[in-house]
Amino acid sequence: MSLPRDYSGQGCALARSLEVVGERWTLLIVRDAFFGVRRFGDFVAHLGIPRAVLSDRLATLTGASVLTRVPASGKREVYELTGKGLELWPVIRALTLWGEQFYAPEGGGPRRILRHAADGAALAADDRCTRCGVLVGVRDILLTPGPGLPGPDSADDPVTAALHHPHRLLSTLPPAKGNPS
Amino acid sequence: MSLPRDYSGQGCALARSLEVVGERWTLLIVRDAFFGVRRFGDFVAHLGIPRAVLSDRLATLTGASVLTRVPASGKREVYELTGKGLELWPVIRALTLWGEQFYAPEGGGPRRILRHAADGAALAADDRCTRCGVLVGVRDILLTPGPGLPGPDSADDPVTAALHHPHRLLSTLPPAKGNPS
Repeated sequence: MSLPRDYSGQGCALARSLEVVGERWTLLIVRDAFFGVRRFGDFVAHLGIPRAVLSDRLATLTGASVLTRVPASGKREVYELTGKGLELWPVIRALTLWGEQFYAPEGGGPRRILRHAADGAALAADDRCTRCGVLVGVRDILLTPGPGLPGPDSADDPVTAALHHPHRLLSTLPPAKGNPS
Repeated sequence: MSLPRDYSGQGCALARSLEVVGERWTLLIVRDAFFGVRRFGDFVAHLGIPRAVLSDRLATLTGASVLTRVPASGKREVYELTGKGLELWPVIRALTLWGEQFYAPEGGGPRRILRHAADGAALAADDRCTRCGVLVGVRDILLTPGPGLPGPDSADDPVTAALHHPHRLLSTLPPAKGNPS
């Protein structure tokens, strides 16, 4: 899709951003990267995204330096957020909060609650700790199950299963059973 | 496009949000509504969006109660953000800031600068006034031309021309010459 006429060559910030991250799968992939998903197969398992679509989106994201490939065990490579990618956190956060406000799951309450790793208190909408008041950086955010999260029995993939336990953002998810790499 | 498998029926906040606003045109339309664009023809002129695509996106946005139709002069109707739509401001703001950080126009500097209407000082990234420190609500934000904005001679549509002057968010844009309605 071409750029809107008004912005071509003029670098409108929003239009340029949406060129890179303006597809639904793309922001879900970035969100998963914040959650600690790094392997191609884990993105597939968690998002249920067709492999060809995932390949395409990962190529866009690495081409735009939002994600980067890093060597892993054996000949494999995994994906990591770059500094530029980490700066997308306010976008993910704002969209998630809007969704929680207007599309709360039937079960009531958010699926996940973000907490300050240092003291376990929940974060306010502006990412400040509701106990100590500090502005919490991404690496100090603990992702914990919320009241809207279905029980672990419904987890049909290793990422969903792992996220039933408190997990620090950006830290690698524990390997799935039977998939030790 | 179907929902990712992990989220179907579970109301993942981000996936649900992206179902509504996860297309590039959609967020540009919402952004324009914050700028004060209200008429179908003005969205077309400013965004250069095909009329059929705009109709489709406006139907999605009104169906999701992000925009609402309100009566205007004669038999016409115009579009306005609802309360739910106004809550998308942090999303627009975060994506725009990310774009300004990584896709600055060649001319240097942002195209537009947001200011506190009460004292004219610029807003920080958290929407606080850099002079008085208050958290500035959307209706008190003044949109002003920035150093990256091309001169008014390049404005080929009435919306772009109007936005070369300071303009309060959400207030209706002045009518274009020769188009008094």
